[in-house]
Amino acid sequence: MEELTRGYLFDVFGTLVDWRSGIADEAARVFADRGIDADPHAFADHWRSLYDPAMAAVRDGARGFVPLDVLHAEMLEDTLDRFGIGGAFDGSARAALVRAWERLPPWPDVGEGLAVLGRHALLAPCSNGSIALISRLSRFAQFRWDAILGAEIARDYKPKAEVYRASCRALGVPPERVTMVAAHNGDLAAARAAGLRTAFVARPAEHGPGQRTDLAPEAEWDVVADRLADVAGTI
Amino acid sequence: MEELTRGYLFDVFGTLVDWRSGIADEAARVFADRGIDADPHAFADHWRSLYDPAMAAVRDGARGFVPLDVLHAEMLEDTLDRFGIGGAFDGSARAALVRAWERLPPWPDVGEGLAVLGRHALLAPCSNGSIALISRLSRFAQFRWDAILGAEIARDYKPKAEVYRASCRALGVPPERVTMVAAHNGDLAAARAAGLRTAFVARPAEHGPGQRTDLAPEAEWDVVADRLADVAGTI
Repeated sequence: MEELTRGYLFDVFGTLVDWRSGIADEAARVFADRGIDADPHAFADHWRSLYDPAMAAVRDGARGFVPLDVLHAEMLEDTLDRFGIGGAFDGSARAALVRAWERLPPWPDVGEGLAVLGRHALLAPCSNGSIALISRLSRFAQFRWDAILGAEIARDYKPKAEVYRASCRALGVPPERVTMVAAHNGDLAAARAAGLRTAFVARPAEHGPGQRTDLAPEAEWDVVADRLADVAGTI
Repeated sequence: MEELTRGYLFDVFGTLVDWRSGIADEAARVFADRGIDADPHAFADHWRSLYDPAMAAVRDGARGFVPLDVLHAEMLEDTLDRFGIGGAFDGSARAALVRAWERLPPWPDVGEGLAVLGRHALLAPCSNGSIALISRLSRFAQFRWDAILGAEIARDYKPKAEVYRASCRALGVPPERVTMVAAHNGDLAAARAAGLRTAFVARPAEHGPGQRTDLAPEAEWDVVADRLADVAGTI
């Protein structure tokens, strides 16, 4: 039995799953049920655009840690108001819509990629999603993990250094033997500053056809790959 | 896709794995390497006997939370002294011996049991073992989990109520929809007091042929089973 002395940590939303298509598909379904004529992709984009500001209050210490599911629910209120369709969604319909984040399609290379990377290393998500959310999403997408790490165990949000460091500690692997895998340059910059190795996997369709950010690596990351499996062998 | 609204939490040492045989086998190996004539089962028993007192200082607040791996290392010092064999183990040999807790054989019904119980519910260990320890042990024993919960996420040790409650919160399932599965009456009493359902699975060989404790249920637990798979359908 090989001793597991290396690890990979993964960003999830955008890096492993196509949140925009998943949320837009669910929005299209619930809009059709209610006869709402609105753009489901614009709805998904607006909902997601509130993500970073929602976490800022926790990162800045203005608000104690709350799991992402709570922030998703608050961000949904704002999004429904913005689209002027709040009246069509009662409390249970809103709660059901929040759970759409638990059923997002994986990018097509992820299943094979995790299988390859997991042969000789520990694997865990290091996401801002809660354990409850990421564990259910992982059932849906058939991701298998050694542990669910990230924001909830650190009780803070990325890109705070403590989220990466707490995840390495929990994995029992020193940061220099852990590679953070992400489609976002900012996530990798923060992981590198926390002492981790870095792997950039481009996801040029994350934000749809008009994507302008994170199309290419913006620093000399330790690895740059188009497919998750190609990250293997780097630590 | 079924919504996962139920959960099972599992004690690990004794309930899912045969720690006594695993530790005694490793002790026998390292004793043979060094020409030490000592009873490996007595060694395993002494090492494990220090487990509860070691955690007491954390539970009582006299000591901040440290992961079980640290306590295992301290307990090993005491055990080596007690057997008068400390001189035969340098630092790296001691560290290697501590990692024997990452390679313990599962009881024979566990693989099938987890597969059955996981069909319609979330599964997580709720052990006093660290995430690093339980994730490696789970690789070795081929346990697949939705998350690794327990002492480390609560930063306290069972049977403190917060360990069970924090595990339910992280799973996103209310305690009354979560069943704690254990071979130890004390663990189940604490889980029940924290609001969880309870399942007793007898492990009459955990402590070897002379076992006198936990041979039978000592309260009206919600389920009593001889095999893990028989716990299914109870929530």
